[in-house]
Amino acid sequence: MAVVLSILRALRDDGPVSRAELGDRLGLTRPRLTSEIERLIKAGYITEAGMAASRGGRRSTLVGIHPRLRFAAVDLGAGSIDIEVVNGRLEPLVAYREPADVRKGPKPILHRVGELLAKARAEGVYDRLDGVGIGVPGPVSFRDGVPVSPPIMPGWDRYPVRELLAREHGCPVVVDNDVNIMAVGERHGGVARSVDDFLFVKIGTGIGCGIHLSGGVYRGVDGCAGDIGHIQVDANGPTCSCGNTGCLEAVFSGAALARDALAAARSGASPALAERLSKSDRLNARDVAEGAAEGDVVCIKLIREGGRRVGGVLAALVSFANPSMIVIGGGLAQLGHVLLAEIRSVVYRRSLPLATGNLPVVLSELSGRAGVTGAAVLASDTAFEQVP
Amino acid sequence: MAVVLSILRALRDDGPVSRAELGDRLGLTRPRLTSEIERLIKAGYITEAGMAASRGGRRSTLVGIHPRLRFAAVDLGAGSIDIEVVNGRLEPLVAYREPADVRKGPKPILHRVGELLAKARAEGVYDRLDGVGIGVPGPVSFRDGVPVSPPIMPGWDRYPVRELLAREHGCPVVVDNDVNIMAVGERHGGVARSVDDFLFVKIGTGIGCGIHLSGGVYRGVDGCAGDIGHIQVDANGPTCSCGNTGCLEAVFSGAALARDALAAARSGASPALAERLSKSDRLNARDVAEGAAEGDVVCIKLIREGGRRVGGVLAALVSFANPSMIVIGGGLAQLGHVLLAEIRSVVYRRSLPLATGNLPVVLSELSGRAGVTGAAVLASDTAFEQVP
Repeated sequence: MAVVLSILRALRDDGPVSRAELGDRLGLTRPRLTSEIERLIKAGYITEAGMAASRGGRRSTLVGIHPRLRFAAVDLGAGSIDIEVVNGRLEPLVAYREPADVRKGPKPILHRVGELLAKARAEGVYDRLDGVGIGVPGPVSFRDGVPVSPPIMPGWDRYPVRELLAREHGCPVVVDNDVNIMAVGERHGGVARSVDDFLFVKIGTGIGCGIHLSGGVYRGVDGCAGDIGHIQVDANGPTCSCGNTGCLEAVFSGAALARDALAAARSGASPALAERLSKSDRLNARDVAEGAAEGDVVCIKLIREGGRRVGGVLAALVSFANPSMIVIGGGLAQLGHVLLAEIRSVVYRRSLPLATGNLPVVLSELSGRAGVTGAAVLASDTAFEQVP
Repeated sequence: MAVVLSILRALRDDGPVSRAELGDRLGLTRPRLTSEIERLIKAGYITEAGMAASRGGRRSTLVGIHPRLRFAAVDLGAGSIDIEVVNGRLEPLVAYREPADVRKGPKPILHRVGELLAKARAEGVYDRLDGVGIGVPGPVSFRDGVPVSPPIMPGWDRYPVRELLAREHGCPVVVDNDVNIMAVGERHGGVARSVDDFLFVKIGTGIGCGIHLSGGVYRGVDGCAGDIGHIQVDANGPTCSCGNTGCLEAVFSGAALARDALAAARSGASPALAERLSKSDRLNARDVAEGAAEGDVVCIKLIREGGRRVGGVLAALVSFANPSMIVIGGGLAQLGHVLLAEIRSVVYRRSLPLATGNLPVVLSELSGRAGVTGAAVLASDTAFEQVP
């Protein structure tokens, strides 16, 4: 890793530190460190930040990330926009969350993103941005900064998201898949802190997987690694939006669960769901979770059956990738311990003992904030990599 | 990568080269390169190797890998020992191949390996070895140099293979899983030359997968990544040696195919197999391949059914890992184009179009030699990494 990037990351993640300690931590010689630090101070990325506690000799000055730095983090979901503007320590200064239908196409959605950022600017949160990170709910060419054939995002195919945002804000921009940014977020500030090799499995409207290896997110050759929602789990299962049959997300996902809940309510098989349907014209994962909590047998069965399907796919991926942790996130993580217990049971039963001997399968700690947190990390990494 | 390692690898893989060209290729300054080269010449790893063609000015001296270097490459299969002793360019100077039952335990097998190497030494192939690489048919702790709970290798669990060989030969030793060394071999001298992200799928007595990413073989957290033989493909399938039901290798592998062929011969369903069984007391993959070539319907069906199962698992792995190539090797690769066609058909139909748009699914070029080739590469890499 470039020296500049490692200095800036250390100050971003661990806060102000003396030159001596920074040199020790990064294994840099004093002259090398001094010259890089002078350069970064001049460029306005870091600043002196008070005095260190004495280590015996002369007290030394702390250096820290410059307080003027601002990054925008954007997490576009299938039905929502999440935005945070953060400082150089990635602490949120303002956060907006509102519903939005990504199927409306890139122009209105990115226009709304621009309005929200303008609002933050008008409120004095920032003067100019140093980097923008944005996650979108579909495959992305990370290199080109564009969505590629995203199934649930009509009009977004190869839309120049990075180029347009970079022109609008005059700073480096990074575009990634929403699940990848969640994995990065969970690695930075969640349950996977300091874990190198883990899988972040998002179970929401669709299902996807962020693969984090020691070097960062693994994106595969075409940038679509982790697209596990279309792995076939039932040759006789329902038809998927992709045209194949029995894909994991056609069998279990937010959309699939709503469909199955509706059927169970209408057939009268589930009194809990029928009662909820009578008060509303639709059902979703929350209804099923509440029904299960009340002991409704069909609701519990729907969740366990889904967990069994997800667990079967994860067991295969554990045998293949031998990760050190699996983190479950996304909207359906609210189905809670019934879902988690079923996933764990299948993974532990079906994978090689050597691979599961010490394999935690846990819920995301950041839940709704995993995406924006990861987008902020990527925005700052990208800006730091481009420091002249 | 350390400078020494990159110099030695370049000379090993590309042959003698002038100092000027080597410096250009590795991006090294002249003084840095000169001092490293003097050091490696003194240490006996490289040597001057004639004069370069003129580049206009004074003709310069070529440097090349030292002709005295010798590495031993050992590929232990479930039923065979393959050994090569190679020079510093990894050219085989002698090759031995003989049947051996790995289930006899580590002592007799490693004793036989020692005898074969002593024979090579007695024949003047080498005086001393600079490195040994050995692949074994089971999970390995790469860090510790020992097999770990290998299902088909009784007596080998945590047996100190690396330590004993290192003591015997007085040189660095590397121990790895047989499928991983095949992947390395295919990357070095086979169909995956210059391909970074690919999967090497071995279909033999069992089924395993070597995962090659840009940094080399990906081994996972516990060293058992790629163990795809125990992914469940049929909840109602046969019981596997691991105790679970319907594992991929219980449904299709050398052992499974022999079992199914025997049943088809005895029931009379396959005249081709019945005829072969009447001449021999057992059937194997070759019999099925020959029967299929003669047009025997049951033989063709057995192969296609197996290809469909393997293809289903590979389709899932393609969605997950988005590799740039899949290489099929191992004994059952002799089933040839019927198997390959079925695997391709399922992978292309069942994975994301973005991931399969440019995804070759091909047979190993090195076939039986992939293992020893990879073992030689790892032996030399390990020796080069330990140059003082």
